[in-house]
Amino acid sequence: MPQQPEKINLAEKFALIPDHWNPRIAGELNGQQVKLAKFKGAFDWHHHEHEDELFLVVKGSFEMQFRDRAITLQPGEFLIVPRGVEHRPVASEEAEVLLFEPATTLNTGNLTDSERTRTNLERL
Amino acid sequence: MPQQPEKINLAEKFALIPDHWNPRIAGELNGQQVKLAKFKGAFDWHHHEHEDELFLVVKGSFEMQFRDRAITLQPGEFLIVPRGVEHRPVASEEAEVLLFEPATTLNTGNLTDSERTRTNLERL
Repeated sequence: MPQQPEKINLAEKFALIPDHWNPRIAGELNGQQVKLAKFKGAFDWHHHEHEDELFLVVKGSFEMQFRDRAITLQPGEFLIVPRGVEHRPVASEEAEVLLFEPATTLNTGNLTDSERTRTNLERL
Repeated sequence: MPQQPEKINLAEKFALIPDHWNPRIAGELNGQQVKLAKFKGAFDWHHHEHEDELFLVVKGSFEMQFRDRAITLQPGEFLIVPRGVEHRPVASEEAEVLLFEPATTLNTGNLTDSERTRTNLERL
């Protein structure tokens, strides 16, 4: 039997997150996960070999840096970073971000031993 | 070469949608699609045999009806409907909804010849 569907309120879930760069799982479907994370400061440069990654800003804003340019994302804007493309999110103030990506995606991508690498994500 | 990433502004994209129950493709990643649709009125009862489906309300609200209960979704809330579960979205006023689901997902699921069935989705 499939589990009873329950709705997720993003603001309520973000309120449970006390730290930065530590994605939590808020939903799972078709082998993909919805993750919620707070960004603040500069993350590590990395790429994902096999996974495309979607970033949707819920609150605040951040800049997605690429090696040749940068894109600033505001609430209600999303960006898909294709596999293989080096990127680094930077948030001058705290930002609340929804990520959508395969369940296999490691937050630091090819950097498997960054101090920010998270391998066992909590569920909200 | 992967395509240059471009950000998508949801409000701008929804402004391009003149009709209801006609999802447009706003992004694609990992075999999944981000679709945007305006809901108004009652849709058809249906289910998806092989696809889980995520609904995130961007503006307005709607009720997701199941055979045994209903869940009302407000902006900033999402719901995942697991494969096989019959459902029917109903919006008393217009709602703007982001869907996330496999590229193979037909909007009317098992109903392949509803007047609302859309097989070739536009890209925004």
